[in-house]
Amino acid sequence: MIDEFEHLKGAVMKDVNTATVILAAGHGTRMKSALPKVMHQIGGRAMIAHVIDTAASLSPDRLVVVIGDHAPQIGDFAKDIDPNISVAVQSPPQGTGHAVMQAMPALEGFSGAVLVLYADTPLVTAATLSALAKEIEDGAAVAVLGFTPNAPGAYGRLKRDANGALLAIVEAKDASEDELAITLCNSGVMAIDSAFLNKRLNDIDANNAKGEYYLTDLVELARNDKLRCAIIEADETEVLGVNSRVELAEAETEFQNRMRQKVMENGATLADPASVYFSYDTKIGQDVTIGQNVVFGLGVTIGDNAEIKAFSHLEGATIGEGAAIGPFARLRPGATLGRDAKVGNFVEIKKAQIGDGAKVSHLSYIGDADVGADANIGAGTITCNYDGYGKYKTTIGAGAFVGSNSSLVAPVTIGDGAYVGSGSVITKDVAPDDLAVARGRQSAIKGWAARFRKSKQK
Amino acid sequence: MIDEFEHLKGAVMKDVNTATVILAAGHGTRMKSALPKVMHQIGGRAMIAHVIDTAASLSPDRLVVVIGDHAPQIGDFAKDIDPNISVAVQSPPQGTGHAVMQAMPALEGFSGAVLVLYADTPLVTAATLSALAKEIEDGAAVAVLGFTPNAPGAYGRLKRDANGALLAIVEAKDASEDELAITLCNSGVMAIDSAFLNKRLNDIDANNAKGEYYLTDLVELARNDKLRCAIIEADETEVLGVNSRVELAEAETEFQNRMRQKVMENGATLADPASVYFSYDTKIGQDVTIGQNVVFGLGVTIGDNAEIKAFSHLEGATIGEGAAIGPFARLRPGATLGRDAKVGNFVEIKKAQIGDGAKVSHLSYIGDADVGADANIGAGTITCNYDGYGKYKTTIGAGAFVGSNSSLVAPVTIGDGAYVGSGSVITKDVAPDDLAVARGRQSAIKGWAARFRKSKQK
Amino acid sequence: MIDEFEHLKGAVMKDVNTATVILAAGHGTRMKSALPKVMHQIGGRAMIAHVIDTAASLSPDRLVVVIGDHAPQIGDFAKDIDPNISVAVQSPPQGTGHAVMQAMPALEGFSGAVLVLYADTPLVTAATLSALAKEIEDGAAVAVLGFTPNAPGAYGRLKRDANGALLAIVEAKDASEDELAITLCNSGVMAIDSAFLNKRLNDIDANNAKGEYYLTDLVELARNDKLRCAIIEADETEVLGVNSRVELAEAETEFQNRMRQKVMENGATLADPASVYFSYDTKIGQDVTIGQNVVFGLGVTIGDNAEIKAFSHLEGATIGEGAAIGPFARLRPGATLGRDAKVGNFVEIKKAQIGDGAKVSHLSYIGDADVGADANIGAGTITCNYDGYGKYKTTIGAGAFVGSNSSLVAPVTIGDGAYVGSGSVITKDVAPDDLAVARGRQSAIKGWAARFRKSKQK
Repeated sequence: MIDEFEHLKGAVMKDVNTATVILAAGHGTRMKSALPKVMHQIGGRAMIAHVIDTAASLSPDRLVVVIGDHAPQIGDFAKDIDPNISVAVQSPPQGTGHAVMQAMPALEGFSGAVLVLYADTPLVTAATLSALAKEIEDGAAVAVLGFTPNAPGAYGRLKRDANGALLAIVEAKDASEDELAITLCNSGVMAIDSAFLNKRLNDIDANNAKGEYYLTDLVELARNDKLRCAIIEADETEVLGVNSRVELAEAETEFQNRMRQKVMENGATLADPASVYFSYDTKIGQDVTIGQNVVFGLGVTIGDNAEIKAFSHLEGATIGEGAAIGPFARLRPGATLGRDAKVGNFVEIKKAQIGDGAKVSHLSYIGDADVGADANIGAGTITCNYDGYGKYKTTIGAGAFVGSNSSLVAPVTIGDGAYVGSGSVITKDVAPDDLAVARGRQSAIKGWAARFRKSKQK
Repeated sequence: MIDEFEHLKGAVMKDVNTATVILAAGHGTRMKSALPKVMHQIGGRAMIAHVIDTAASLSPDRLVVVIGDHAPQIGDFAKDIDPNISVAVQSPPQGTGHAVMQAMPALEGFSGAVLVLYADTPLVTAATLSALAKEIEDGAAVAVLGFTPNAPGAYGRLKRDANGALLAIVEAKDASEDELAITLCNSGVMAIDSAFLNKRLNDIDANNAKGEYYLTDLVELARNDKLRCAIIEADETEVLGVNSRVELAEAETEFQNRMRQKVMENGATLADPASVYFSYDTKIGQDVTIGQNVVFGLGVTIGDNAEIKAFSHLEGATIGEGAAIGPFARLRPGATLGRDAKVGNFVEIKKAQIGDGAKVSHLSYIGDADVGADANIGAGTITCNYDGYGKYKTTIGAGAFVGSNSSLVAPVTIGDGAYVGSGSVITKDVAPDDLAVARGRQSAIKGWAARFRKSKQK
Repeated sequence: MIDEFEHLKGAVMKDVNTATVILAAGHGTRMKSALPKVMHQIGGRAMIAHVIDTAASLSPDRLVVVIGDHAPQIGDFAKDIDPNISVAVQSPPQGTGHAVMQAMPALEGFSGAVLVLYADTPLVTAATLSALAKEIEDGAAVAVLGFTPNAPGAYGRLKRDANGALLAIVEAKDASEDELAITLCNSGVMAIDSAFLNKRLNDIDANNAKGEYYLTDLVELARNDKLRCAIIEADETEVLGVNSRVELAEAETEFQNRMRQKVMENGATLADPASVYFSYDTKIGQDVTIGQNVVFGLGVTIGDNAEIKAFSHLEGATIGEGAAIGPFARLRPGATLGRDAKVGNFVEIKKAQIGDGAKVSHLSYIGDADVGADANIGAGTITCNYDGYGKYKTTIGAGAFVGSNSSLVAPVTIGDGAYVGSGSVITKDVAPDDLAVARGRQSAIKGWAARFRKSKQK
């Protein structure tokens, strides 16, 4: 059993003292959504939560989220993840430098590397953050995260000196032709030495076209102070910023690709990786086989040697070793399958234990139930668990056999080894080893069908 | 609510007088199909209909479809779309110039830009057509649509003069090495000034290897007349011609990508855009969430804030605001869901109204029915709407509760607030607020199951 | 009807005398699997079986599989495919030269081209093998399969002489800068003249860092003997070697792409080829339409003009001409649909004949059954075919009508033209043209639902 989420955090030693400031004050109007942009999800988790998780994996001394006053729920959400997170409000937003200024009270007394991250850039890795912080520890005043985009276009270019250190961040509009030819660009993510930040942050001014305070000005200030500025490079996918639903989908795909890669590296076979979708917390065992078109919602754990066939949809489910589900299975929260259990096509399981070796093979709804080991639930069985007001429990004993198309009207208990005749509506408990039948009596009307056909064909 | 189809037409002002000739006489033998090539569909609509729709968005004075005599149904199909469309027959086909010659009677008296399109090139946009027509209005005799293919190979090259005007179309086989290095190629799509066309079309000859009349010869004739020939450039995807099922699939993918982009730009979230399939007429509201693997057949409208979960298949369905469907839901023509209605897994809805807030959550077939607001339809409910000859209606009142695994034998009415016991076969109307039960009586045989097991295990 | 598998073998004339040695002794530890690597499947068939099939298409005189002693089941598996296959054991493995040495006894007396293939390189084509063998027939001592990878990296480079013949295979670590610039690389696949092999194989030594015998040393030995070494080039996809689950997935995708291309070229329409998955033995007729997200397991044959709608899952099924299945249909082994039969959504068919024109449209399980022509099976019908021990048969006559939500308790026969009332549990045979009904009597309790609601709302 592996923790799929682990690799997204990286396994980082706390070797550098860090604080993290996460900028989350933007409006995200291009999302065309009532939901704040950074609350949109990747792999079933809000973008800002991904950034918080990644930052948290470095065990920072301080974690500050800077929000706008239009979306106080972002601050509440952050504090729900960790009450030690500080929330600062930037109102109105006046640039990245201004955002960090709002975070400074929460950083008072901190000494080390201050990481500045973006809540809409959810895929940056802990290894990258660690590398940035390490540069500060090694004496840089600022360490900037660079990347080489396919289309450098309007990105600021990272100009290096002969030693490879960062000389300047040149905005595209101000760049010479030579500078425009530089392909290494500024992602915006950076680490800053806290002493330098305390000393110089307020020297950033807003004397520019937009009248904003740009955090990138720190590079020039550091160079003026004869301090070293470093560059760490990351893949373009790591710094993918999300400003629209199209970019959200791109980030989701990149996230899924990471998960797919990791799951396969851990010893699962995916028939078509591109058609399997994980949540950030999905846990997959070894020698698991996953068919085409499988969706893992939140909170799923799959045991070793299990088989998840094509067209399966799982949320909040725990699948035992060697169990098989699908195709066309739908497991909802609270579905727990024992070892070697089987759930087949067009079956929904909700808040139910399916015992070791038990089978629910076809067209059934098993909800609020406890199914014993090796029980066999026939095709078309329905647990009638709801009366319009409450939910009631169905208990099916070990080795019981429930005939096809039965209705089990909860609360009801089918005893161990009991047998329910096909097509029965069971409203009373069935004792262990008994047979229960509850269906109408069959009668025939001779030649009726022939006469009916005749009447219709007239 | 947006019209997804809109962007494919472009929003074009009728600023130029146009006529359109659509060539549709080819045999399409590489399709290996009994269906004429141009009747194969993209996004649920025949390729030729896409071209007609795009042409129609410019409000042309004349629209002529040139067909072969082997497929008269293409002409009928075109006239079904718009009875004002003229159909010309080219028999036998002797090249593109010859095809346009057959269209000339239908263009008699027309003055303006004549657009020549291809029924198997369905993705050309209205904006591009408009730009071509504009060149004619601005004085060009001919305007050719060029594109820069990944592999120029055998395409004719567009040779420019110093002013960027079109000098000649050089066939690849006749091209010098320098000419072969030209990457801008001829798509075949063009606009022609009607006066020039009337004067010079008949000067095209068939003195070539294939003995065909090539419309592209007009460029040379225009140059001889000292007339300007213009080039408009389009992306390669716009001029994708379909000659095989492989190319049909490529065009479908390009069409889907356009739809996906547009739907996201309008404010819907697609978990994995590449796994969602639209029809040309799908309409999607804002803040709609669409899961993985969703197929929208013809005639679907989705209201704002609705959620379409993974593995859903919809045709001819109307989904109210805030409604949720799937996973594994199948909505067939005539399914209409009210506001906040819910349709769950393994449920089929056909020709049925599902009222506001009503729920059909699991394993049900609701056909030819009217389900009132806030009704709850239990798992496994089947409307028995068919007797082998006719279809009959089931009416379920507001706030009614239908117990699981019930069969509702139509025509039948369940009154408002009525309650049907689980596993019942309802053949008679149930009055409002009544309880109806119709099931067998449960009986038990002591120890039968244990004896049965024993007998089998001998 | 076409044999989809054919094109993978190529249609090769037996013009060259060949023997094939397939190396399958590796441990495959990067797969992290209890299953031997070469037993992992592509298109539903073990990788080694693909290589055996391809080799077999050249009708070789000898076919030898070299296995390690850790996985004797690989040898058994090969002999199950063809008892004439020789199995040699390499223990412990000491390189590719050493592997071929173990195969020599099985090649005794053979004269012609010896092909050396890899069981973990399953996509090499018969046409390529044929071309390699042809070089031996034309006088080369060795013919090496080269390819031009995207990233040549650590691959051995193929150095040519002025005539294009192979001069040497230069290992990347021993290569000069000029040699590293060579993009044509060694795939490991080769053909060797048997006389040369007999004479020189034992001259390969293990005087290298790893102490292994490298088959590639034959190139140098041949050059020393003044013999010609040839190069055949293949696409990188053909020589894709599988060492991890990620590479297994890549090979699967390449295999699927070949199948998709072939099926489309044969005249089927695939709505989205990338979402349709074939097995190596899938057979698809002409003018078949296949929707999005369809999985073909082993042993499926689809007749002309059939329609396989989205979200269908088929294994071991035979679909008649003009039949339609899905969406959301699941056909299991032994499902046989007659001409124009229909199987609709949420229907499972297992080991059952569905007669010409018969319909099983919704939410049914039909197993161990015989359904007559033009029969209509209502929504929610279940064949109760299992009693916990044996499986029993249901026979439904031609033109019979089974009402919705019926349970047919096998063994049972519904006669031709008979009619079963909705919601019936049928335990006794129904005579032809009779009506059978078996359900509870409907009773009502006046105002119960209103009282119940009131009691709950207190």
